[in-house]
Amino acid sequence: MRLTLHTDLALRLLMLLDVNRDTWTNLTFASEKLEASQNHLNKVAQRLAKEGWVVSQRGRGGGLRLGMDAQEVSIGTVVRTLEAPSALVACMPGGNGQCTLLGPCRLKAILQNAEEAFLNELDKVAIGKLTEKNQQLANLLLDPA
Amino acid sequence: MRLTLHTDLALRLLMLLDVNRDTWTNLTFASEKLEASQNHLNKVAQRLAKEGWVVSQRGRGGGLRLGMDAQEVSIGTVVRTLEAPSALVACMPGGNGQCTLLGPCRLKAILQNAEEAFLNELDKVAIGKLTEKNQQLANLLLDPA
Repeated sequence: MRLTLHTDLALRLLMLLDVNRDTWTNLTFASEKLEASQNHLNKVAQRLAKEGWVVSQRGRGGGLRLGMDAQEVSIGTVVRTLEAPSALVACMPGGNGQCTLLGPCRLKAILQNAEEAFLNELDKVAIGKLTEKNQQLANLLLDPA
Repeated sequence: MRLTLHTDLALRLLMLLDVNRDTWTNLTFASEKLEASQNHLNKVAQRLAKEGWVVSQRGRGGGLRLGMDAQEVSIGTVVRTLEAPSALVACMPGGNGQCTLLGPCRLKAILQNAEEAFLNELDKVAIGKLTEKNQQLANLLLDPA
């Protein structure tokens, strides 16, 4: 049971941008700090930009920046948005591409219910809570430039 | 966010064995019904046997059978046992194999908490509840032999 690397990286990028909320962060810096490829990070940033959570500016002195109030967007909202709906409920891929048990299988509803409990917990925590009064994280992620 | 195919298949195999609780189920039958390879199913069965949830008997007329009371073992117990502990909390694999943010990152604890909420929901439902008074499922999975 795991989040996709895409979502994982998105959460960490938002943390990094929140720490550096007063400046534009360039992709090279973010890539080094998060130990992720610029290519992957760029895809994640584009996805977040689509939601308005990140804004980007081209050219010298540009880069990425939060496009939201990090206290207003929850981890749950980010996970719900980035993860495929109910990907958790991976029904058996049957011969025709559908689970052979579809219909009478009660597992799907039970897993969806549990997934909802999972997401409800994440709804309680704003992205901003990850960085708030977290000097140790700031030391790691703050852009000295 | 998803369960591993291994766990998914385990849950479905337990459902099938519960439907056929009065007989030995052979692997060929289970493999056809669940549209999974015998090899994969065998691995899953061995893992379940290790927990005593499935017993196997070699030879003609043998096969697999539930080794537990399906009303006594919850879906949560099965998932907790088969999934790697906190695999959900996939920290960023950093250069040294550890997440670069380890330590000040609050995400891990928050995701673990949410995972616990997910599993708590699954703890409430016994494997036996998946098959109980589920004639449509029995029609699909009952071994006519």
